[in-house]
Amino acid sequence: MERLVKPLPAYLVGRYQGWKATSYEENKSWYRRLADEGQRPPMMVIACCDSRVNVNEMFGAQTGDIFLHRNIANLVPPYEPDGDPHGTSAAIEYAVTVLKVAHLIVVGHSNCGGVAGCLDMCAGKMPELEEKSSFIGRWLDILRPGYERVKDMTDPDEQKRALEREAVVESLSNLIGFPFVQSAIEAEELSLHGLWFDIREGALEGYNPQAKGFEPV
Amino acid sequence: MERLVKPLPAYLVGRYQGWKATSYEENKSWYRRLADEGQRPPMMVIACCDSRVNVNEMFGAQTGDIFLHRNIANLVPPYEPDGDPHGTSAAIEYAVTVLKVAHLIVVGHSNCGGVAGCLDMCAGKMPELEEKSSFIGRWLDILRPGYERVKDMTDPDEQKRALEREAVVESLSNLIGFPFVQSAIEAEELSLHGLWFDIREGALEGYNPQAKGFEPV
Amino acid sequence: MERLVKPLPAYLVGRYQGWKATSYEENKSWYRRLADEGQRPPMMVIACCDSRVNVNEMFGAQTGDIFLHRNIANLVPPYEPDGDPHGTSAAIEYAVTVLKVAHLIVVGHSNCGGVAGCLDMCAGKMPELEEKSSFIGRWLDILRPGYERVKDMTDPDEQKRALEREAVVESLSNLIGFPFVQSAIEAEELSLHGLWFDIREGALEGYNPQAKGFEPV
Amino acid sequence: MERLVKPLPAYLVGRYQGWKATSYEENKSWYRRLADEGQRPPMMVIACCDSRVNVNEMFGAQTGDIFLHRNIANLVPPYEPDGDPHGTSAAIEYAVTVLKVAHLIVVGHSNCGGVAGCLDMCAGKMPELEEKSSFIGRWLDILRPGYERVKDMTDPDEQKRALEREAVVESLSNLIGFPFVQSAIEAEELSLHGLWFDIREGALEGYNPQAKGFEPV
Repeated sequence: MERLVKPLPAYLVGRYQGWKATSYEENKSWYRRLADEGQRPPMMVIACCDSRVNVNEMFGAQTGDIFLHRNIANLVPPYEPDGDPHGTSAAIEYAVTVLKVAHLIVVGHSNCGGVAGCLDMCAGKMPELEEKSSFIGRWLDILRPGYERVKDMTDPDEQKRALEREAVVESLSNLIGFPFVQSAIEAEELSLHGLWFDIREGALEGYNPQAKGFEPV
Repeated sequence: MERLVKPLPAYLVGRYQGWKATSYEENKSWYRRLADEGQRPPMMVIACCDSRVNVNEMFGAQTGDIFLHRNIANLVPPYEPDGDPHGTSAAIEYAVTVLKVAHLIVVGHSNCGGVAGCLDMCAGKMPELEEKSSFIGRWLDILRPGYERVKDMTDPDEQKRALEREAVVESLSNLIGFPFVQSAIEAEELSLHGLWFDIREGALEGYNPQAKGFEPV
Repeated sequence: MERLVKPLPAYLVGRYQGWKATSYEENKSWYRRLADEGQRPPMMVIACCDSRVNVNEMFGAQTGDIFLHRNIANLVPPYEPDGDPHGTSAAIEYAVTVLKVAHLIVVGHSNCGGVAGCLDMCAGKMPELEEKSSFIGRWLDILRPGYERVKDMTDPDEQKRALEREAVVESLSNLIGFPFVQSAIEAEELSLHGLWFDIREGALEGYNPQAKGFEPV
Repeated sequence: MERLVKPLPAYLVGRYQGWKATSYEENKSWYRRLADEGQRPPMMVIACCDSRVNVNEMFGAQTGDIFLHRNIANLVPPYEPDGDPHGTSAAIEYAVTVLKVAHLIVVGHSNCGGVAGCLDMCAGKMPELEEKSSFIGRWLDILRPGYERVKDMTDPDEQKRALEREAVVESLSNLIGFPFVQSAIEAEELSLHGLWFDIREGALEGYNPQAKGFEPV
């Protein structure tokens, strides 16, 4: 790896040093306590890797507030304890059984490249995503049941936004299939929440399971 | 799901609305442009889900700057195109082949619960993590080669910190095994970086492959 | 030009080569992407040529972050499409209509030689600046309306600082007169910001249009 | 302007505060001296507004080192003391007659959007740039004599790079037409330099007037 791994670019070093001299310094006692006593976050958030979705900022989070898993299209796979590595399932297991978070929030968003790719793949427009070797495609398979629910929509923009919301609903539905999630909910030690964020308008909608739809928060 | 999914707690609604009226409002034109033209982040960061590690804040990031994947112990699994869903590999594939990020930065950290669990599991102290059904255990298997490199250390604190750094090194090493990562590096269109963050001290160390060790940035 | 244009002094060659071997090398993949895909800066900054005002450094900017126009006293002339060359207006037109920047920030500063010259000229103390052939004087004419607003101040230091701030306000006011600036603001695709930087104290103040004054950021 | 001018986005405030707590603080005594005694830069640089060209970084500049004018395509217009405002000429006059800089350096660069626009305009491909109301077009008129020297080139990439270099040569040639530049050179108090920077490769070339061409520095 000698010639492959490089030093951090200078502008990131500079910004980090600025952060350390200000935000860290002002908050040092809290960092010390968090290091010494361990984290104790009230919530886990599952959001997309997208660079335009910053849930810590949007929720005014303090250091230690949010146990945050981010993956492509904020997807939770079905419960499958097959002995293979499952990063998302491991993060959920850790949050619910070790950290005992009180809230588990799935955050979808507009303009999601992963969801757009899923739509194209399921519609047969991106055969390269259907190949066994496509990590993106095999990950987006998780959203195929959601696609079935929107496939007859005719307006492409509406269909994409609908599938972005289905990614949240599908993930919530898969979450319930994890026995430790189910039992934490039944013990009233955990509640689930679903959100969808509109990047352009800064708007946030919450999933209302009674209405089977999303409403402005 | 009717009785399982709940509305967002009021304090998060309140903080979100405050964010929208201030940060979003000041930066609205940039959100609009990001929504209309798509994201173009210069870097992908792979960090831990830990609530005490906020790389956006530490790097003074602007919305759109960091494509961020977070999983337990900031691990990258080996390249395995077996047709199963691999969330981390999908995120890397998307960042490198679709977004064409220039930097891929793995950020480890002190006090990592995942790394501590790996240490206990490999030392035979947590048999429940060795079960086939343990998502946490099967995910932490990725770090077993790193454990081999630190297993003879006698001071437990030093050993844990060493394994936290090995989690970064192992991930960098696995990253190089992805053909699309390899070819982007060879084309000088991508560079890799490894960091380790000390929560208590706010300190940051960078991996120096020549010295095969970490040094303050 | 044979005898008039000389090679670069050796100390600048040396510093450049050091930069290339370090900063450029660490960040090479980003330079390549910027060259291949073009710039996409979120902001344009209009600052003074003064050697003591480095907005890239002050804002921790990454290469590609700031489209930067610098002229004497950070002035924006009124909108005047008369077919003559207007360098400042051309830079603004390029930033707003071609690059579609989200933020346009005017940065004034303390100890501004241009503003001091304007004050002396308007007070009749520097007749040479009033000559038709004085480029400095004819450029500083842009700030005459600002002088009218401070001319009755009696403390010379306060008056100079007031006129430095008026240079920012006058520029913002002239910016709004450009039709393409106006329409980008109305579409919420552009926002204006005014700052004043104190070189001695490193302090930064922002223009608050409601208070019609500057406040620490 | 009440509803048009906004506060600075929070991420810029944060980065500025980080800079103040580190770079400024470490360098405070120099800022104080620069504020109290005035600037005394050894050089003026004329560069493009392009966000990818940071001459302060490339030349390892200290605060106070470079009096910096940046405009579209790093152009110097011909000497024209007609009583109209000329921002570039004013900056040059201030640098040479007030600050008495020892070096005046024109820096061109690859991938220049302004030069590409000039090429298209002169080739009749962008009639909108030929309109009287186009600030960009009227500014790029300065480079028309340079276009005449490259118009017969057949390879479009070579032609663009040639015109980027001509922008430097034309500016140097116009500089010599300013009487105060001419007399400062004759008194051996000022020397001119021309450079062209390749963004992709980080390479720098200097103008050699004897060879009438550019050579690596």
